[in-house]
Amino acid sequence: MKILVINCGSSSLKFQVIDAVTEELLAKGLCERIGIDGSITYENVKDGTGKETSNPAIPDHNVAISLVIDALMNDRTGVIKSLDEIGAVGHRIVHGGEAFTSSVVINDEVIQAIKDVSDLAPLHNPANLIGVAACQKLMPGTPMVAVFDTAFHQTMPSKAYMYALPLSYYEDYKIRRYGFHGTSHSFVSKKAAEIVGKDYADLKTIVCHLGNGASISAVMNGKCVDTSMGLTPLEGLIMGTRSGDLDPAIVEFIANKENKTASEVLNVLNKKSGVFALSGEFSSDFRDLESAYKKGDKKAQLAVDAFAYRVAKYVGAYTAAMNGVDVIAFTAGIGENSPFVREKVLSYLGYLGIEYDPAANAQRGDVVKISTDSSKVAVYAIATNEELAIARETYALCK
Amino acid sequence: MKILVINCGSSSLKFQVIDAVTEELLAKGLCERIGIDGSITYENVKDGTGKETSNPAIPDHNVAISLVIDALMNDRTGVIKSLDEIGAVGHRIVHGGEAFTSSVVINDEVIQAIKDVSDLAPLHNPANLIGVAACQKLMPGTPMVAVFDTAFHQTMPSKAYMYALPLSYYEDYKIRRYGFHGTSHSFVSKKAAEIVGKDYADLKTIVCHLGNGASISAVMNGKCVDTSMGLTPLEGLIMGTRSGDLDPAIVEFIANKENKTASEVLNVLNKKSGVFALSGEFSSDFRDLESAYKKGDKKAQLAVDAFAYRVAKYVGAYTAAMNGVDVIAFTAGIGENSPFVREKVLSYLGYLGIEYDPAANAQRGDVVKISTDSSKVAVYAIATNEELAIARETYALCK
Repeated sequence: MKILVINCGSSSLKFQVIDAVTEELLAKGLCERIGIDGSITYENVKDGTGKETSNPAIPDHNVAISLVIDALMNDRTGVIKSLDEIGAVGHRIVHGGEAFTSSVVINDEVIQAIKDVSDLAPLHNPANLIGVAACQKLMPGTPMVAVFDTAFHQTMPSKAYMYALPLSYYEDYKIRRYGFHGTSHSFVSKKAAEIVGKDYADLKTIVCHLGNGASISAVMNGKCVDTSMGLTPLEGLIMGTRSGDLDPAIVEFIANKENKTASEVLNVLNKKSGVFALSGEFSSDFRDLESAYKKGDKKAQLAVDAFAYRVAKYVGAYTAAMNGVDVIAFTAGIGENSPFVREKVLSYLGYLGIEYDPAANAQRGDVVKISTDSSKVAVYAIATNEELAIARETYALCK
Repeated sequence: MKILVINCGSSSLKFQVIDAVTEELLAKGLCERIGIDGSITYENVKDGTGKETSNPAIPDHNVAISLVIDALMNDRTGVIKSLDEIGAVGHRIVHGGEAFTSSVVINDEVIQAIKDVSDLAPLHNPANLIGVAACQKLMPGTPMVAVFDTAFHQTMPSKAYMYALPLSYYEDYKIRRYGFHGTSHSFVSKKAAEIVGKDYADLKTIVCHLGNGASISAVMNGKCVDTSMGLTPLEGLIMGTRSGDLDPAIVEFIANKENKTASEVLNVLNKKSGVFALSGEFSSDFRDLESAYKKGDKKAQLAVDAFAYRVAKYVGAYTAAMNGVDVIAFTAGIGENSPFVREKVLSYLGYLGIEYDPAANAQRGDVVKISTDSSKVAVYAIATNEELAIARETYALCK
């Protein structure tokens, strides 16, 4: 069975086709500027025909999906002959609230439940549902599955997910910690257990998902017990352009000083903060920051040092949360590709009995063992693959 | 030399007289409801004459200070014959901003500098200065010293004190982590070094100041390197009525849902949150919460469990910040008096090689050793004494 994986934003749509049995990636691509002008990039990965980009008008998501189908069935570059070959579609849905603790086959009730929590992810959930509707229209009869960013974190205990706020805020508005990147944290923590050859149900793992958005999770005995993102993806680590943790009083303080609304302040915290801000608005890209760091740029040094320090503190905190740690896994853009950042984080963690090999840390690959054999904690860089994880979840429900 | 220690709020004034040489507490008391109606409680501790309360009219702080002086010189209950015996007055000042890294003798420039950072502590600094002015008026010629809650934390490195916000917010508005309770963190961390017989300049200590307001600090090699309170005393641990850490996006989310201004939301986060909120508005007093916990009250259990869990995570984070820890010291109301909470915190920390003795933990005293001799980290409950610390600082500058 082939699975179409869809990650739909308000003006973009990422897709992959994965063979669910062999887990081979057959094709992938991206529609952009939907509703503006339009561009589609497509690659038949199976036959290696290379990446192709064109700029058809894409007035809406229905047109985007039909262009995706055309590309997938194209005589020259396609990977399927007929739409029937697509056995199911897996949709990334950002927020499942408390309603969804795992992936589900989409029906009308599911769509309503996703709408019901849209105020928790107003930029993401409505866009995700537009993608679902477009697929349903053009592929009637093909089962659709919702895979939630939040579902993996629903196992957190109340001491981890409850904020110390009036209980009515939780009861009436569902204000609590949800966490995001759950598909990645789930995928990487399971992969880590496989790699070290231990039972997932009997392991303490910390996953550091370090990308432009970044979050950490503590996974104990097969369940997520804590994670750094909260009600929204703003909380926790310092990110590319997001502040992460702040004194909550700062929102009002800035609003008063800058004569801004709270909403305008939040826009700054989400889009103009993070390492981008600390580096003096130099860059949110760690390749740029690392290069500037090594040339002695003080602001780039502050940005990277503060980023790594925050990661190390969360690793320390989650080690306490689990009363120990067996495996630390770095993943996502920075986690997979920056030995420099990994080494900075690990420099704080000798007290855990961690020993690492700088030469091993410098390696690249889907799985890189960084710790030495005598290290008390196994440390790895593990490539995440959220699309494959979505395809697996979808296949499990539709095979 | 005798030192008068003053902690002045907007409608209250706490005072102590301490013999700077013997460090004996001679007298203490509290003026309340200043500007409303008035009450003064006074106790001659030296002669043990007991606590006396009266209700004179106290229209302003000048009257309050003159009542304090009357009580101190009273024939029956006084501890001095003449005002000349007060060699200096030590004032607690909440916020020193970046201007003050240690205590200073107060002059016009110092008063101006305290005023200059009053927007960082609008409820506290102006009230503190009213106390200074009242003392200056009634005790002209007696040196006054400012002891800042923030000064001890000024040694933090930029990676710990900078928020990941536009740099202009730091440059223009001085938005950064300051930390509070510094006098207590300093006093207890120094005391801890004395107790374990190690050099303060070569020790890694975590001080858990757990009171109605609560904060944690990491003190490495004699310097504070991180602390949980931030720009304001709202950040960090769950407190009596303060939320501590939150997703910063929650401020706007609540404002929208409740149709409140950011300022109104902050009022809820400071005054109606914390364990008080989690316990279903049952109590902010841990004696009540512990009692309800043991009777099976689920909300009280959530409040205490979430509180202890947050403390444990900060201990874990600060252990990472220092790449290890030698001593953990519990202090302030809960830290000194709740074996129940201490044990809950320590239950997370076995991975650090901490071993503790439940019987020892149940003891009371100014210094209680909780860890066993074979524990890899020494754990103590140590009584804090901010007034004595202020008296010491004042004496050091005025003797």
